[in-house]
Amino acid sequence: MIQRKQSAFLYQQVIQMILSMAEQESILPGEKLPSLRVMAQNLSVSIPTVKQAYQALEDQGKVIAKEKSGYFLCERASHHDSPKRARLPAKPVVVNKQALIEQVYKGIHQPHTIPLGIANPIAIAGTEQVLAKIMRRAMKEAGHELINYGPMDGLDSLKKQIVRRYLDMGLAIDMDEVVITNGAQEALAIALQAVTKPGDVIAIESPCYFGIVELAENLGLKAIEIPVCPDDGIWLNDLARALEKHDIRACVFSTSINNPLGSFMPDSRRAQLVALLEQRGVVLIEDDVYGDLYFTEQRGMPAQAFSQSGLVITCASFSKTAAPSYRVGWMVAGQFSAKAKRIKRALSCSSSLMNQWALADFLSSGGYERHLKLVRKRLIENRDRMIHAVNAAFGDEVRVSRPQGGCVLWLDLGKQVDGALLFQRALEAGISITPGTLFSASKKYQSCIRISYGLPWDDSVEQAIETLGKLAQAQRKGLA
Amino acid sequence: MIQRKQSAFLYQQVIQMILSMAEQESILPGEKLPSLRVMAQNLSVSIPTVKQAYQALEDQGKVIAKEKSGYFLCERASHHDSPKRARLPAKPVVVNKQALIEQVYKGIHQPHTIPLGIANPIAIAGTEQVLAKIMRRAMKEAGHELINYGPMDGLDSLKKQIVRRYLDMGLAIDMDEVVITNGAQEALAIALQAVTKPGDVIAIESPCYFGIVELAENLGLKAIEIPVCPDDGIWLNDLARALEKHDIRACVFSTSINNPLGSFMPDSRRAQLVALLEQRGVVLIEDDVYGDLYFTEQRGMPAQAFSQSGLVITCASFSKTAAPSYRVGWMVAGQFSAKAKRIKRALSCSSSLMNQWALADFLSSGGYERHLKLVRKRLIENRDRMIHAVNAAFGDEVRVSRPQGGCVLWLDLGKQVDGALLFQRALEAGISITPGTLFSASKKYQSCIRISYGLPWDDSVEQAIETLGKLAQAQRKGLA
Repeated sequence: MIQRKQSAFLYQQVIQMILSMAEQESILPGEKLPSLRVMAQNLSVSIPTVKQAYQALEDQGKVIAKEKSGYFLCERASHHDSPKRARLPAKPVVVNKQALIEQVYKGIHQPHTIPLGIANPIAIAGTEQVLAKIMRRAMKEAGHELINYGPMDGLDSLKKQIVRRYLDMGLAIDMDEVVITNGAQEALAIALQAVTKPGDVIAIESPCYFGIVELAENLGLKAIEIPVCPDDGIWLNDLARALEKHDIRACVFSTSINNPLGSFMPDSRRAQLVALLEQRGVVLIEDDVYGDLYFTEQRGMPAQAFSQSGLVITCASFSKTAAPSYRVGWMVAGQFSAKAKRIKRALSCSSSLMNQWALADFLSSGGYERHLKLVRKRLIENRDRMIHAVNAAFGDEVRVSRPQGGCVLWLDLGKQVDGALLFQRALEAGISITPGTLFSASKKYQSCIRISYGLPWDDSVEQAIETLGKLAQAQRKGLA
Repeated sequence: MIQRKQSAFLYQQVIQMILSMAEQESILPGEKLPSLRVMAQNLSVSIPTVKQAYQALEDQGKVIAKEKSGYFLCERASHHDSPKRARLPAKPVVVNKQALIEQVYKGIHQPHTIPLGIANPIAIAGTEQVLAKIMRRAMKEAGHELINYGPMDGLDSLKKQIVRRYLDMGLAIDMDEVVITNGAQEALAIALQAVTKPGDVIAIESPCYFGIVELAENLGLKAIEIPVCPDDGIWLNDLARALEKHDIRACVFSTSINNPLGSFMPDSRRAQLVALLEQRGVVLIEDDVYGDLYFTEQRGMPAQAFSQSGLVITCASFSKTAAPSYRVGWMVAGQFSAKAKRIKRALSCSSSLMNQWALADFLSSGGYERHLKLVRKRLIENRDRMIHAVNAAFGDEVRVSRPQGGCVLWLDLGKQVDGALLFQRALEAGISITPGTLFSASKKYQSCIRISYGLPWDDSVEQAIETLGKLAQAQRKGLA
């Protein structure tokens, strides 16, 4: 920033500012710099000061003056002339989990990378065209209304569709219990804030989606990990023992389909789970984002349906089924609705209106259900292909899950393989995966990785699996 | 919900479910009910049970059976036959502030109401058409990319434009310091969570935007109110005394333009404010949402620009200048960036991508700056018109602000008038306003109201002011 008091160095500060903008590509190579007058006015410095800076940059070969046109940024004007590093460092740095999560996310958005590291099944049966069409209609039919503030707890038309879907499942809820949120993550954040205070103990799954581990840390909660059976979800005996031993305030469980295991909890066990918790007055926050991506014959009932005392909060979203980027989720908050609405208002006011309108339309037209059928069919095909490819590429030493829903495989590669190191090596090879250690609040799952089968199946995916197999082999042989 | 164990009453539960859906308009009058088979399957009950329910509803005259077509909902099938109440109750109920805030928001979205109760200056110079055009291009050019997950801390192209705008103001910041949020409210929530813990004391303005009061309550913070001068912002002497007396951890101040007063803090005083706080290691969270809606000759510098020790976090958004419903805001988090990004990720992952793309395009084309000029011009015209109308309608007993920015007037109607009662009466007359008592964490401003001049000026607005004047007069005369 321009420090007005040190006028002797003002022109140098102007130089630094321009270079830093160039480096951040706020001014692009070949672009015209603001005129001397405009720049001077913007920075509240004199025109000669700006001129001095521009001329110095010209001397350094970073700016070029064109007669009667002004000053232009040269092709290479940033501080560092070395090309930007396209890959993460080869050696794994000592990282805490948060740094590792950040690397995983960076890896996903790194160009020319096969994104097996993100649980996103949208690409498999794109919604882009149909949603674009709906969006165009939204702007035509309701443009004015959709640019202004919407109701804090969500658009009524979307809430109605959500209520109707639950009715189709056999669960009658009231529209007033539904709060639209910025994705399921915000729903989970609100639910936890509604029923816990910092220092409280909650139970989470093991393995558990790392977004929940981070959220718990962020809210100052202590998390107890309850193991999940790859076949049918939470081990209820372990949960019962934990409830005896600890003063657990709430549980955050993916009652439908666990991420990363892909286990499916049968309805009878969901009913037992709810009974066990409600007996003791413990709140169940169910993460049902994968509920519609089931491979079983029927969708599982939300645990909400088995509640007798209203201690279940259901969280879900359209991120895994229609549009991750829309950031539209919801919660069925029951008796906690009033509190949840207040927290939502304080956290982020309302949610994006246009996106809500488009999804309401997608649902009411029946297009969403048709789309879900297609997604499930393709996901099952992809799961089978990928299990096959994994077995071929990793050999006998891999233990791979057989998910009954969702879009991810869970691989245990054995003690000799470090999932975090494999993540680094894979990224160098242009493949993003998720290291297993992220799925625990403690030190578990270091030999595991999670990979997504949500991408359209093609040679590049097949090759990526092959490469991963080789990288794991190299580690086993001590070559990594 | 269908309680499977009590099968004797199953058909009655099916009836209740249909009636409740009808009441919530999930099934509309005249619409066909699901077929017996489908309904039975959905609810996991037998076909005869559903038939029994449909026939009972037919007997009650709520459903009509059409030969070979199925069952249809009659025109009036809900529980209560009385028309839905269009207005809030005539007598003010005993309310806490949160209930009052909820009534204010309901009032805004009530049909056929003049919405003077919401601070929304978008209608005055609509962005709807231009943004719709950009959106269509977004879907064409980047549809695929924009449906998937985006970077957690925001779209680079938007961050670049934000950095460039600050550069134009004379403030060089790094792209890495910027975190895109779901509106400024989420930015404020993240900022407070980054620098405080429950039980901490923060300083807020008085009067203060009620969203901040609610947020502080929500986070378990204690708020000290520092008075704001209608001319030039926070009283620094009062702040200095409060800093002596209390262990204040952070201040949340609208350094630019106070809502509801419309005061403008000159740059010299912003510099003093930052110096005063940084001397003591107190963090300043500045709410700069109205910063671009200034009526002074120049825009005020964000207080961020005067920071020497990096203890300032700037929060802002496009909600007051381009598209409230997009829910796109940002924060310049400086040294708190890493923490802010983690909190953002845990709270709601990323923000809506399409909306970010559209705004980045709006900014880079120069359209945004042109739009802002028009908005400021029209707001000044409207402010003057509305002050004139208020003086004419309310007579000598009103004290009205003369805002130097923003889109709201602050009226003190004198001790005889209760702003909360006036709010109720106005709503019955089809006008939404905001009662003054909401702008304090304590019991201040009961005789005040806030009204927006952000609507296009027309007869209905003029008449609304006249009506408000009469309602205030009636209260003075004891007729309310």
